[in-house]
Amino acid sequence: MEIAELGEFGLIRRLTENLNNESPSTLKGVGDDCAVLNPTEGTQTLVTTDLLMEGVHFDLMYVPLKHLGYKAVMVNLSDIYAMNATPRQITVSLAISKKFTVEDIEELYAGMRLACEKHHVDIVGGDTTSSLTGLAISITAIGEAMPDDIVYRDGARETDLICVSGNLGASYMGLQLLEREKAVYDSQIQNSKSNSQNIKDDFQPDFSGYEYLLERQLKPEARRDIIEALAKAGIHPTSMMDISDGLSSELMHICSQSKVGCRVYEDRIPLDYQTAAMAEELNMNVTTCALNGGEDYELLFTIPLTDKDAIEKIEDVKVIGYITKENLGKMLICRDGSEFELKAQGWNPLK
Amino acid sequence: MEIAELGEFGLIRRLTENLNNESPSTLKGVGDDCAVLNPTEGTQTLVTTDLLMEGVHFDLMYVPLKHLGYKAVMVNLSDIYAMNATPRQITVSLAISKKFTVEDIEELYAGMRLACEKHHVDIVGGDTTSSLTGLAISITAIGEAMPDDIVYRDGARETDLICVSGNLGASYMGLQLLEREKAVYDSQIQNSKSNSQNIKDDFQPDFSGYEYLLERQLKPEARRDIIEALAKAGIHPTSMMDISDGLSSELMHICSQSKVGCRVYEDRIPLDYQTAAMAEELNMNVTTCALNGGEDYELLFTIPLTDKDAIEKIEDVKVIGYITKENLGKMLICRDGSEFELKAQGWNPLK
Repeated sequence: MEIAELGEFGLIRRLTENLNNESPSTLKGVGDDCAVLNPTEGTQTLVTTDLLMEGVHFDLMYVPLKHLGYKAVMVNLSDIYAMNATPRQITVSLAISKKFTVEDIEELYAGMRLACEKHHVDIVGGDTTSSLTGLAISITAIGEAMPDDIVYRDGARETDLICVSGNLGASYMGLQLLEREKAVYDSQIQNSKSNSQNIKDDFQPDFSGYEYLLERQLKPEARRDIIEALAKAGIHPTSMMDISDGLSSELMHICSQSKVGCRVYEDRIPLDYQTAAMAEELNMNVTTCALNGGEDYELLFTIPLTDKDAIEKIEDVKVIGYITKENLGKMLICRDGSEFELKAQGWNPLK
Repeated sequence: MEIAELGEFGLIRRLTENLNNESPSTLKGVGDDCAVLNPTEGTQTLVTTDLLMEGVHFDLMYVPLKHLGYKAVMVNLSDIYAMNATPRQITVSLAISKKFTVEDIEELYAGMRLACEKHHVDIVGGDTTSSLTGLAISITAIGEAMPDDIVYRDGARETDLICVSGNLGASYMGLQLLEREKAVYDSQIQNSKSNSQNIKDDFQPDFSGYEYLLERQLKPEARRDIIEALAKAGIHPTSMMDISDGLSSELMHICSQSKVGCRVYEDRIPLDYQTAAMAEELNMNVTTCALNGGEDYELLFTIPLTDKDAIEKIEDVKVIGYITKENLGKMLICRDGSEFELKAQGWNPLK
């Protein structure tokens, strides 16, 4: 169905009907000039926002709309968890070009709702409008936390341990894989103009053995489990952020805002087997991918040295180094013992 | 300066340096995974968001970037006031194509900051990224109010008086004027290919006598003054919203959500002299423009009949009709006494 048939209000009605507000702090969702929230007594409010543009942040050639919706929500929830807070609500704004049908947007929304349900988050408002070209998605997430629980980027202190959750570089490798298969498809189409429809119908991208990489790229998960495990273990990170632009870039943020240096050990950086195998197949340096790939949505945090025993009992967290005095620099210690100054080579959407 | 020279972080630093957080509820603005807000005790939180796309919502051929930034903020603040609440913070996300320079974005931001300063609102976060074509602006505004002060759309009751602030249709007429002068310019360029540079340099659009219409289109003001005057007079509206899509469309929202009807009198609809003159010049029906033009950002609200004397003392507010039983319909009573069912013909960005 064409979106023009429904119009703005019709489409909004269709997308937002049956939205069940789960959070006790949601008083009024979609349907007035504003959403109305009732913050839990004593909490502070966290706000983060993200704008995703077709052709810059995602390629609909290989990203299914449902996955896109899911991921667009997850990356915002990840920012709330990275403050050691709990997400409660999101708003969703969409600008949609004519190539999309009502069913397409329902797919996108289904992915968003799935991500929200998983994290008990309400969709409380937004804006739906048209765009001349492509799709734009703007999400704002709102969370809450008790003041003493909130973790900023600037609290890392000398001798603190540097920790990361999960493993790094897999999402970036998943993107390389998708790009490779897209290139194969494009070249097959170009080489056989006569039966291009056959290729369109029959083309099967080859992802075998690399399913995990695809999942990390297409369906990242915000690490609420880590936040919960830390709370349960009584560990309060001194600084924290999520890894969206690459470990290197994020480490530099923590160090510069905390006015400290760091020493990170290459052999401690957690990697999945598939990440290493794919890097070898593509003749890329796996450490570079893990340091600069980005889109991991894992948590990077520092803890007092006294929590060393406690952190080792938490599954899926690894200590990769420690915090030093600022004048010692931000150093990567390689497998062979050589040392390099870390550089932020993370993804720069404006370059 | 090209934006690529600065990169994402450099541009953000440049735009957000010297941002002074004024609101006591702003604990942490730009610079971490999230902004951190401390809601005033006992208040509820209001959230509204808007996504503006170049070519759909604005035409940079005749909208200066500073005005665009100012308006983009104002329309969000207007939504907060329309709940009878006070705006405190905004986040600003921008997607920028290559045609824009650093100076352009600084102009846009200067307009945003001006609007914020006027209303004591802090810019606490956002996202800055690139776009393949044109500019996208997504703003989320956050406000607060004591629970009993918040006014929804669904509280209008039979015999309530229907009020509007300011005057209607002027912004729409301003847009017609801008479109007309753009068409004149385009035709001059087309008719004289040889010296088009001269025309580009020398063309002077003719806005004389219609400056107020331009101001209403390019520099709308959110009506905090009306909210304050109502509070001072002890008037608590039973329902309220701001007029962004046209009086007709908004009246229908209030009536359907409140499950009531209305009678609105054509001769009571407030018009500026310039709006009427421009409508005559363009051979348009001025009432249609006032009912359906949109972008007025005036307040539409209902009050108990007992507040009749009090409302008449408030400057720049007019009673245009009253609320009836639902089964009596939503009626416009024309100057000649004839009656018409109101229709929402407001601007539909998806049609």
